[in-house]
Amino acid sequence: MAGSVYGTILRLSTFGESHGKAIGGVIDGFPAGFEIDPDAVQREMDRRRPGQSALVSQRKESDTVEFLSGIFEGKTTGTPIAFVIRNEDQRSRDYEHIKAIYRPSHADKVYDDKYGIRDYRGGGRSSARETACRVVAGALAKQFLEASGIHILAYVDQVGTVREQQSIPVDVNPETLRGQIERSPVRCLSAQSAEAMEDLIRRVRSEGDTIGGAIRAYVTGVPAGLGEPVFDKLHAELGKAMLSINAVKGFEIGSGFGCIEMRGSEHNDLISPDGSTRSNFSGGIQGGISNGMPLDFRVAFKPVATIVKAQETVDNTGKPAVSEGKGRHDPCVVPRAVPIVEAMTALVLMDMLLRNRSAHSE
Amino acid sequence: MAGSVYGTILRLSTFGESHGKAIGGVIDGFPAGFEIDPDAVQREMDRRRPGQSALVSQRKESDTVEFLSGIFEGKTTGTPIAFVIRNEDQRSRDYEHIKAIYRPSHADKVYDDKYGIRDYRGGGRSSARETACRVVAGALAKQFLEASGIHILAYVDQVGTVREQQSIPVDVNPETLRGQIERSPVRCLSAQSAEAMEDLIRRVRSEGDTIGGAIRAYVTGVPAGLGEPVFDKLHAELGKAMLSINAVKGFEIGSGFGCIEMRGSEHNDLISPDGSTRSNFSGGIQGGISNGMPLDFRVAFKPVATIVKAQETVDNTGKPAVSEGKGRHDPCVVPRAVPIVEAMTALVLMDMLLRNRSAHSE
Amino acid sequence: MAGSVYGTILRLSTFGESHGKAIGGVIDGFPAGFEIDPDAVQREMDRRRPGQSALVSQRKESDTVEFLSGIFEGKTTGTPIAFVIRNEDQRSRDYEHIKAIYRPSHADKVYDDKYGIRDYRGGGRSSARETACRVVAGALAKQFLEASGIHILAYVDQVGTVREQQSIPVDVNPETLRGQIERSPVRCLSAQSAEAMEDLIRRVRSEGDTIGGAIRAYVTGVPAGLGEPVFDKLHAELGKAMLSINAVKGFEIGSGFGCIEMRGSEHNDLISPDGSTRSNFSGGIQGGISNGMPLDFRVAFKPVATIVKAQETVDNTGKPAVSEGKGRHDPCVVPRAVPIVEAMTALVLMDMLLRNRSAHSE
Amino acid sequence: MAGSVYGTILRLSTFGESHGKAIGGVIDGFPAGFEIDPDAVQREMDRRRPGQSALVSQRKESDTVEFLSGIFEGKTTGTPIAFVIRNEDQRSRDYEHIKAIYRPSHADKVYDDKYGIRDYRGGGRSSARETACRVVAGALAKQFLEASGIHILAYVDQVGTVREQQSIPVDVNPETLRGQIERSPVRCLSAQSAEAMEDLIRRVRSEGDTIGGAIRAYVTGVPAGLGEPVFDKLHAELGKAMLSINAVKGFEIGSGFGCIEMRGSEHNDLISPDGSTRSNFSGGIQGGISNGMPLDFRVAFKPVATIVKAQETVDNTGKPAVSEGKGRHDPCVVPRAVPIVEAMTALVLMDMLLRNRSAHSE
Repeated sequence: MAGSVYGTILRLSTFGESHGKAIGGVIDGFPAGFEIDPDAVQREMDRRRPGQSALVSQRKESDTVEFLSGIFEGKTTGTPIAFVIRNEDQRSRDYEHIKAIYRPSHADKVYDDKYGIRDYRGGGRSSARETACRVVAGALAKQFLEASGIHILAYVDQVGTVREQQSIPVDVNPETLRGQIERSPVRCLSAQSAEAMEDLIRRVRSEGDTIGGAIRAYVTGVPAGLGEPVFDKLHAELGKAMLSINAVKGFEIGSGFGCIEMRGSEHNDLISPDGSTRSNFSGGIQGGISNGMPLDFRVAFKPVATIVKAQETVDNTGKPAVSEGKGRHDPCVVPRAVPIVEAMTALVLMDMLLRNRSAHSE
Repeated sequence: MAGSVYGTILRLSTFGESHGKAIGGVIDGFPAGFEIDPDAVQREMDRRRPGQSALVSQRKESDTVEFLSGIFEGKTTGTPIAFVIRNEDQRSRDYEHIKAIYRPSHADKVYDDKYGIRDYRGGGRSSARETACRVVAGALAKQFLEASGIHILAYVDQVGTVREQQSIPVDVNPETLRGQIERSPVRCLSAQSAEAMEDLIRRVRSEGDTIGGAIRAYVTGVPAGLGEPVFDKLHAELGKAMLSINAVKGFEIGSGFGCIEMRGSEHNDLISPDGSTRSNFSGGIQGGISNGMPLDFRVAFKPVATIVKAQETVDNTGKPAVSEGKGRHDPCVVPRAVPIVEAMTALVLMDMLLRNRSAHSE
Repeated sequence: MAGSVYGTILRLSTFGESHGKAIGGVIDGFPAGFEIDPDAVQREMDRRRPGQSALVSQRKESDTVEFLSGIFEGKTTGTPIAFVIRNEDQRSRDYEHIKAIYRPSHADKVYDDKYGIRDYRGGGRSSARETACRVVAGALAKQFLEASGIHILAYVDQVGTVREQQSIPVDVNPETLRGQIERSPVRCLSAQSAEAMEDLIRRVRSEGDTIGGAIRAYVTGVPAGLGEPVFDKLHAELGKAMLSINAVKGFEIGSGFGCIEMRGSEHNDLISPDGSTRSNFSGGIQGGISNGMPLDFRVAFKPVATIVKAQETVDNTGKPAVSEGKGRHDPCVVPRAVPIVEAMTALVLMDMLLRNRSAHSE
Repeated sequence: MAGSVYGTILRLSTFGESHGKAIGGVIDGFPAGFEIDPDAVQREMDRRRPGQSALVSQRKESDTVEFLSGIFEGKTTGTPIAFVIRNEDQRSRDYEHIKAIYRPSHADKVYDDKYGIRDYRGGGRSSARETACRVVAGALAKQFLEASGIHILAYVDQVGTVREQQSIPVDVNPETLRGQIERSPVRCLSAQSAEAMEDLIRRVRSEGDTIGGAIRAYVTGVPAGLGEPVFDKLHAELGKAMLSINAVKGFEIGSGFGCIEMRGSEHNDLISPDGSTRSNFSGGIQGGISNGMPLDFRVAFKPVATIVKAQETVDNTGKPAVSEGKGRHDPCVVPRAVPIVEAMTALVLMDMLLRNRSAHSE
């Protein structure tokens, strides 16, 4: 109810502040008898972790996941799967300087507006550290989906004005594409874009500034029939899931905002005898229900709000103040957001897969 | 669970197929003692109704709303508010020709894929007629919000390549803006854009084609503190609500997709001593919680899939077939979608307003 | 949220006041492709209807159910099934005398306490007329369960001090038992009890008074595995469902309150090699999960609060007043409550059956 | 969805197996700004703890609660409150003998039936150890309710055939009553009953057997208006909450099963000018909504299934086997169940209190 729970049949409840004792979550509704690969979970965590490359925040977080329940002798038991990630970096001193100051375009002020109290250390609950819990749960969901032949692939499609030019070929092999994406620390498709994006991120960082970006997600193997009319359309749930990720300002599926300037005669996806469509402006979803084509959507991330430059703001008494960025923040959030986009996609799809089990009377 | 229910405290459950006996809904959780203006509900229905101008579908639907419960002596009683809209246009004959044929970019095929059965008459449950129920419920929510000083204004921001050039002035009077929008059948802001948009829509229709468009929503008077971290962020719920509307392909808030090319130093909204921000790239929401600035978001609608031109497709046995558009469809959906966007915005905001009543211990 | 919705996957949302325009409901989540027998629905309604025998209220209500959506060519489509039952008996005059007077042990006062407003005509939302909607939805669920071999049988186990002496034999045929129950208007098992119960009810009515009773439910064919630990145990959901029926004051399963005086060594149900248990003190549920034995529970109904005798009370200004029962009320509620108990049992079991579809990974 | 979540606005999600790493829970929706007394939480835990007296299980569990989030500088922040209780007693060896054997009237077999896999160590998820998490969450809710003047008191009303004879006087002081209850390890009201109950429990234990019991709950200070018609009636939610506790077989409110033999003329609670009722057969609830009188309900607990005596059963291949109780189990569960009943009552009432915040339009 209070918003820290996602899903209907597969239900993730997360908790934790960035500088409290721990963050973590409980997954209720994961079906029994599924063999879990804990190493794969940790690999996903490593893709999200700060310090993984020179392009991202150099903050030190080991992000070791401890599972507390719901897995027995390597398999899920159908009971809640709980996990915790202890916070190592609890130096409250670091945050005394922002205790009373509202950082621009951060959630400091609105938390006080809403609750009248907040854990001001490192953003508390509003910190992007929270997304680590999504990655853990998403990693389990991803394994479940992979076993059903559903492969989720996300990559950096744009950083500032640099947009990935390479497109995904029809009948791409998910494993090949995954390897291609992980080849560069920026997680785009082509070597050419990687270089340009990395250059831009380095330049922005050297200026003490930050830059926006976009991630595109591509999901193969989705069976037709997932998604629930009317309000819980598949792309509506995907949109909500993406927009719930820190820093996301936009979501589009298939043709997306490009559809505005299109005619119906060019936008319609003609259906072939094998059930596939000749184009995929629908992004794999028709009327809120998957049609068997790859899901294809794009997510816009704003530039990180923490910048080195001093900015005018107010403190918690309404007096003018100055906010100064310190430390070890990301110049661009998208390289590390790729596994988060994948994780949320996995949670949506697995939930929809389970919900769809009740579509038929037999 | 099956997706025809929206909301947490204020919960709308809708039903009905376009050519069944009736469509309608039940609203559970509307607080007691609120005086309802039934005429205002009907006015909203008239804004959505086909046949309201020469620009839209000339289909005849009177869309008369009958309330069955939950309102007594003019006031809400706290018990469920049910309403029905009888379908007048039940001529099943009209739809025999599409019984077995899957129209491109319609939901015909995916409903069969999902359920193995569908009411093929006029799109059944997937018909945009379903949105009438959203407008009824939204009209009640709107009245509730207006009484709290929250004003929702949506307008057509773009049709094809024609984009509204006029912007909304700071401190706009909601009533003035509303009058301005309703002045043209296309529901944009300026007379100049109205003419260009109308011209384009007429041209497209004369070609038997359809065109996409965009709607922008602007909400004033939203108090700081609405929205629930982490998953139920205010803009995530708004995004879901918008993406659940037929034909929507994209949602962006504040800077939206424009944020991708921006620097943090220009994107950050500096906070003034009165609590307002100097810019509003955040679109009125920070960390998922309203910050007291106007909400500002934009929604992309694809061109209507029903076109006059014959299109290759398949029938329900997988054999090649031809789909031919008939009848009285909209050349562009956005003029009639304005009240739908407003209705869904109202449902989200009223729900969040009620959810926020539990934010504080006292 | 506001309490007029029941279920998780199969979700019933009901509405309506006893003397408003109509009562009805929407069922979201009923699987597609199930053939509905509308006559069987009406038969269940007739079992609940006033005026069905000399033992019950002689109020005239035809209770004709109109389905508005979700059923196409005789089968469910997977979309919401809506239904309405028009109220014929809307003579508001009849209720002027109770407009301001709080009837003892009715919900008049608490509705005013809670909402500050109420539809005072005939009890409004708190009227037992509301249970008609449960019977409609339950009748559909019952058909679904019967197709899965699950048979729900309820009967009057006690009226005042007269308790049914006959017990249900092991391996009873559901159809035989059903016939036996419907043989008497009081709906108990044996002819002997029927006579004694009918005599008691007639005597109580002649004295202008009312009497309590108990209903026992017995469900055969329930597969092992239904029910969800920890909070949504099968008997916890059954208990909630029963206690939500008007006039219910108690629920017990298996040994029930009798367990208090028992020893573990006599109460434990020993398991036989075929998986059945030698006794059924568990009432078919172990640890909240069905074990394959018949479900067996008992529900206590208080004497109807409307009596002929004048009673001291207060009016809505707190002044002393006199409440006088009028009209056509039931001397004992249990004969007509049998189909309601069955309906709620069906809604719980069908929901649990659908929830259980997600128990396994494959 | 999968049943380990309770509540609507105040939502508790629990996890953990009795012999896994830890048990715990996440509370989402606790309002911000409430000062928590952690010692009071631990005191409640101590009331539930094994080994607290000679009457209960001598198993050693320290049950130390660690809060991980949601509390900052002693106050709730409105974000999820997570807690863990590490399991000390993880000696899996102890449970090898029950790995393959289904204990009678335990959940061993049904977990296998449902999930095809189970953590067999000490009952796993079905162990009563799970209730410790309810006590933690309930202890927080209780503090919240106490601050609103709502006092929950539960006591042992019956053990076997020994029933508490003393009744609760009108206008009892909650603190006095609480002291009286805690005076004896059996937690009944009078010294006389305490002696008889303790004697019985000791005798039963010496025979290697167990015995059932009943707990009565009495709640003062509940304002009129709590509870939601139609399905979420206050006593329906209380019933569900109680029946979800391990070993509970029955629930009754006010007159309870006694109502069956009563006449309406004696059962009706006449309303006095001050709004109170002269009798309280309703148990403080009318039509599902609290009426301002004390809540008064009773819960039946079966005899603990683990007994010393060998019992015939089957193993997980269906072969006949013998189940032998070992160790340190309770001869009677009710003395330790008192805080669990109180905890679940608190969770229901706090949730209803928050839900009621949306009853009025202003």
